[in-house]
Amino acid sequence: MFRLLTHEATFARLAEELKSRASVVQPVVLYDDGIFRTGTGTPVEEPVEIDIVYATPDAFFGPQVAKFMGTVLSAPDLKWFQASAAGIEHPVLQSIGAKAGAYTSSHEQSDAIAEWVLWAGLDWFQGGLARREAQAAGRWGRMEFTEIADTHWLIIGFGAIGKQTARRLRGLGARMTGVRRTPGPDSDADQIIPPGDIGSHLGTADAVLLACPLTEETENMADAAFFAAMKPGALFVNVGRGALVDEVALLAGLDGGQPAYASLDVVREEPLPPESAIWSHPRITLTPHTSAQTMGAARRTDKVFLGNLDRFLAGEPFVNLVPKSSFSP
Amino acid sequence: MFRLLTHEATFARLAEELKSRASVVQPVVLYDDGIFRTGTGTPVEEPVEIDIVYATPDAFFGPQVAKFMGTVLSAPDLKWFQASAAGIEHPVLQSIGAKAGAYTSSHEQSDAIAEWVLWAGLDWFQGGLARREAQAAGRWGRMEFTEIADTHWLIIGFGAIGKQTARRLRGLGARMTGVRRTPGPDSDADQIIPPGDIGSHLGTADAVLLACPLTEETENMADAAFFAAMKPGALFVNVGRGALVDEVALLAGLDGGQPAYASLDVVREEPLPPESAIWSHPRITLTPHTSAQTMGAARRTDKVFLGNLDRFLAGEPFVNLVPKSSFSP
Repeated sequence: MFRLLTHEATFARLAEELKSRASVVQPVVLYDDGIFRTGTGTPVEEPVEIDIVYATPDAFFGPQVAKFMGTVLSAPDLKWFQASAAGIEHPVLQSIGAKAGAYTSSHEQSDAIAEWVLWAGLDWFQGGLARREAQAAGRWGRMEFTEIADTHWLIIGFGAIGKQTARRLRGLGARMTGVRRTPGPDSDADQIIPPGDIGSHLGTADAVLLACPLTEETENMADAAFFAAMKPGALFVNVGRGALVDEVALLAGLDGGQPAYASLDVVREEPLPPESAIWSHPRITLTPHTSAQTMGAARRTDKVFLGNLDRFLAGEPFVNLVPKSSFSP
Repeated sequence: MFRLLTHEATFARLAEELKSRASVVQPVVLYDDGIFRTGTGTPVEEPVEIDIVYATPDAFFGPQVAKFMGTVLSAPDLKWFQASAAGIEHPVLQSIGAKAGAYTSSHEQSDAIAEWVLWAGLDWFQGGLARREAQAAGRWGRMEFTEIADTHWLIIGFGAIGKQTARRLRGLGARMTGVRRTPGPDSDADQIIPPGDIGSHLGTADAVLLACPLTEETENMADAAFFAAMKPGALFVNVGRGALVDEVALLAGLDGGQPAYASLDVVREEPLPPESAIWSHPRITLTPHTSAQTMGAARRTDKVFLGNLDRFLAGEPFVNLVPKSSFSP
């Protein structure tokens, strides 16, 4: 019998599926009231014992996130941790990856994030800001916008998120330059360039998207020189990690129109401190690291978990297993 | 020699192309200062004489729109009028169509309008309104949205605009029901239904788009019964004509959540009167009939005009000729 830790909202979606595996999997469900319960609602005494964890935004954004992660970190024999996202650079995830028997990730949020980027891109090129201001002021008058079909995007990080985004934008007629280590071609890009060539391509793009992992090499990659090299009037979008960006340089760049606007789903310190200038900057759209939060992403990620659960129970290899070498204890 | 009336901004785009036809086409350019000038900038005495008109948003949204249209209406022998849009129900266009030797339309705005609909749809399903409110309030917290891939659209009017919109939305994974008289199938829709079946399909759509012409049959089609039949929480979008909608019923419907939100590029009276409740309604996005106003649309429409100009000069049949029977003097 394996004990599975999940959050109550995640469990609610999976309850039916888990019933059919009740003889081998025993749910340990953390509720938002801070109490652990079994799959049938009986409170479980603490400390709870767990073998498997399925961690989703339900837990990360719930009021019991500290208790949830604390339970994971203190589990003496964690056999498998299924994450709902791709990023593993957070210190807590690093610790979990180092101690867990297996750590599997998920890329099912890419479709949701790609739609978020499309929303951010369309709102900028359509002049959403100016349009809302005109409506609020009761102004009826001509307002020209740029078709996304006429834009060129530089997508830094051409993994699942970058490719899903590029696919949608190309479907709308936009041109794509993808940045990744592995040389091209790629069916989702007009051209693939290596990271070393970013500088010489920044000036050609109407929009620059960061969708790469945070590593020692990529930290602060979007700095003063980066923004100064951007095409005046271009859009800057970040769905990667906040620490990819030198935020002081970004704010200074916005004042000079390079970039002209920034759409950010991630910031260096999350939650963003109340005193940050990012909150109220007139040329920034900020969402609280929620670009992946859709019912669709949850549904797809649940499927990945259930598939891996059956592989785990059958002793078969996981899908999306992250190599142990990716984690430092 | 044919005298061609255009607006100064339109002429600026066409100047090079017209130079090569200077021996047969003489530009009569109306400037925003109210003065007619030749292609080389020499003022032309009034009343000016014209044979051909190329009318674009530059003229319609400029300060001299009354003078431009007055010149067209009073021309004694107007041989050909090229419009930049598809709609012909405006009384002035009806008069022009009735008197002109030929009236040609253009569908090159469809791509721009389709992008506008995508912007409106994404902003609604992504919760743009709530997100901007959260940012303004400095609130960091979970916010779930619906992927457009999970939505079903009812597109009323499956002509150029409806199809271009459907093509983009389907590319993103959404399901499309198109409404038109001519039976399906259509490669841009999952199903085609006749206008008589709209009522029984309204309740199934997450978004309803009006993209049909204004006729006696379609006027006020979106009335109280229409909104009451919509799925609670659904989006209503109008890029057709304002008079397709009973605006009193729309405002009442919004109060009850059917529709939950309205994105309007057109209203019954344009410009919208300052006292209209539409301006400041918290659940309406209004743009001033500008969904087609892109450089891309202008560029494509210019091409249609130049193509027709060469056909006119060669005595060949026009593209996009509107039958005389469509106009009543």
